Amino acid sequence: MTMRPPATVGMKLAEVDTPALILDLDAFEANLQRMARSVAGTPVRLRPHAKSHKCAEIAKRQMALGAVGVCCQKVSEAEAMVEAGIPNVLVSNQVAGRQKLDRLAALAKQAEWIGVCADDAGNVDAIDEAAGRAGVILPVLVEIDVGAGRCGVQPGEPAVALAKHIAAKPNLSFAGVQAYQGRAQHLRTLEERRAAIDTAIALTRKTVTALEAAGLDCPIIGGAGTGTHALEAASGIYNELQVGSYVFMDADYGRNLKADGKPVDEFRHSLFIYATIMSHPAPERAYVDAGLKAFSVDSGLPLVFDIEATLERASDEHGNLALAKPANRSLVGEKLRLIPGHCDPTVNLYDWIVCVRGGIVEDVWQVTARGALL
Amino acid sequence: MTMRPPATVGMKLAEVDTPALILDLDAFEANLQRMARSVAGTPVRLRPHAKSHKCAEIAKRQMALGAVGVCCQKVSEAEAMVEAGIPNVLVSNQVAGRQKLDRLAALAKQAEWIGVCADDAGNVDAIDEAAGRAGVILPVLVEIDVGAGRCGVQPGEPAVALAKHIAAKPNLSFAGVQAYQGRAQHLRTLEERRAAIDTAIALTRKTVTALEAAGLDCPIIGGAGTGTHALEAASGIYNELQVGSYVFMDADYGRNLKADGKPVDEFRHSLFIYATIMSHPAPERAYVDAGLKAFSVDSGLPLVFDIEATLERASDEHGNLALAKPANRSLVGEKLRLIPGHCDPTVNLYDWIVCVRGGIVEDVWQVTARGALL
Repeated sequence: MTMRPPATVGMKLAEVDTPALILDLDAFEANLQRMARSVAGTPVRLRPHAKSHKCAEIAKRQMALGAVGVCCQKVSEAEAMVEAGIPNVLVSNQVAGRQKLDRLAALAKQAEWIGVCADDAGNVDAIDEAAGRAGVILPVLVEIDVGAGRCGVQPGEPAVALAKHIAAKPNLSFAGVQAYQGRAQHLRTLEERRAAIDTAIALTRKTVTALEAAGLDCPIIGGAGTGTHALEAASGIYNELQVGSYVFMDADYGRNLKADGKPVDEFRHSLFIYATIMSHPAPERAYVDAGLKAFSVDSGLPLVFDIEATLERASDEHGNLALAKPANRSLVGEKLRLIPGHCDPTVNLYDWIVCVRGGIVEDVWQVTARGALL
Repeated sequence: MTMRPPATVGMKLAEVDTPALILDLDAFEANLQRMARSVAGTPVRLRPHAKSHKCAEIAKRQMALGAVGVCCQKVSEAEAMVEAGIPNVLVSNQVAGRQKLDRLAALAKQAEWIGVCADDAGNVDAIDEAAGRAGVILPVLVEIDVGAGRCGVQPGEPAVALAKHIAAKPNLSFAGVQAYQGRAQHLRTLEERRAAIDTAIALTRKTVTALEAAGLDCPIIGGAGTGTHALEAASGIYNELQVGSYVFMDADYGRNLKADGKPVDEFRHSLFIYATIMSHPAPERAYVDAGLKAFSVDSGLPLVFDIEATLERASDEHGNLALAKPANRSLVGEKLRLIPGHCDPTVNLYDWIVCVRGGIVEDVWQVTARGALL
């Protein structure tokens, strides 16, 4: 059921079939290098999140620039990464259910290192049993709620209690603390993001201190996203950054502001949806062949990149363009790029990433873990 | 890159891995039969829309109950259906671009009948050239704007002009009128839907009359969706219904009202997202393993079906449940069903549909055209 690729190597961009995911390789490589440089020479490691790109080719390039491994959110996503040659994966999420836990334990035999997070004692018991059935020792991190109000046990003593529960299990090892503040990533001003991460840092430090007092070392103290990574990196407590979106950026991250009130510009938009105008029934209105099955709308509609127009609405297979300059000649057949509203769920809609440099298709990469739900 | 199925035949529902698409076969079959009965013995034909289910197994069951063929929105979707044995496909959409048009023409050699829509003279020229290259005659419908304000030429003389342009082409045949009123489908009251479809009917009749006056017969006069199908069926002018969502229904369609002001109940919810609670950090809050990659949110969040709870928010891999009854025991590992907010883009996220009857998995169907973007 893998769909045919929309492009072949050597093709001109204008020849790429649509809708297609286009990766600007120059921008992409600059983003990878910039993030790698940001931690070079420090004790902080990069463990980029593969949930954003789901692409083993990208994970390999992150590892080549120094990443210690990747994060995944799903066991099947981790399986896809390991099968494609990524040796070290943290499932930075809870995993519930015997089938998934048995597969996770099986994967630990195949990979160099597989870790998982937990926030529930019963779930820890189930992970231990699965590891026992497979004959492996599974590293487990305690997820703590550092202010996002989502998953995770409370920082401090509740985290210590769960860590002790893990450490006492025959088939588990306590591997540290998962301390991701997801809601902080898209707070618009630097002051808001700093305030949220200051809280996260304090709660994480309190927890790590309590764990150490209980004799429990934390090999991994992980968290951070593209919106706040510099804050966690400078914290003196986080030692792994789980950044994902920086490789692509998207319209939602593009709305974050720097200290000076201007939009963030540390990373460049490298990912685009390439679309064709298929209908142009009135001078001021046109319709592209990309809709709700070609981009996610949870964080707003995509931005139009190549022409002066606004994507005003989307239905399943239509994107409604309002043209800033009404055009009296038919634009049917013309192609343009859109900046995704939210990169992660958009990438998951595609089987292929078309890599372009200088207007020429240089490579076509599989979205290895596309649809990895389990 | 096809992901492993979440279930095997004979498994109990509770054993199905998650997230998974679950089809209640009794409800599904009742929906198929009810729609088939609604046109039985009338001159109106069913041409259900495969963009909703993307599943050849479902298309075959629709054909077995009398459908003359299916609609698709994409050439690659039509290819998937034809390759799986569906002989008759109308691409009820504009197709722009030489690669797609060449593939459409090639498909016409393989299938019994392939049609396409157009609303632009230059696009008609391109379809004719592709048909000429392939040595086929392609049937083309003129899409008219019957009030939705999206694609389509204006009804009446503009439609006649484009139909004459098609009829004059050596490699095309004029095949009728595409007159779908998409915006009417989710108008909440029957009065609003009736007013919109009365307008659509009048504009369609005016166009067909003008076409006949010009000597142009309309083999297909197509449109209608699940929200309004009875109105088009009773119009005396539409002869094909392109209904899609009735096979599954969804939360958005469930908000439509009947004449008596109560929710529509003609078709049953047959499609569910099966999810597992993976985190339950506070008595009133729990998190399922299904988020933005497991359901679309363009028409609202899914509804919780099995327990008293509300899905309040979703991120990439998390669905946030607010529990009506706070639970002091851990619910981690418990499974529940969600009703999708919008079935079409939700189905497109899955490789498999798990068919269940009496609590047992009876079949597992491929989502044949999952990700068919081109």
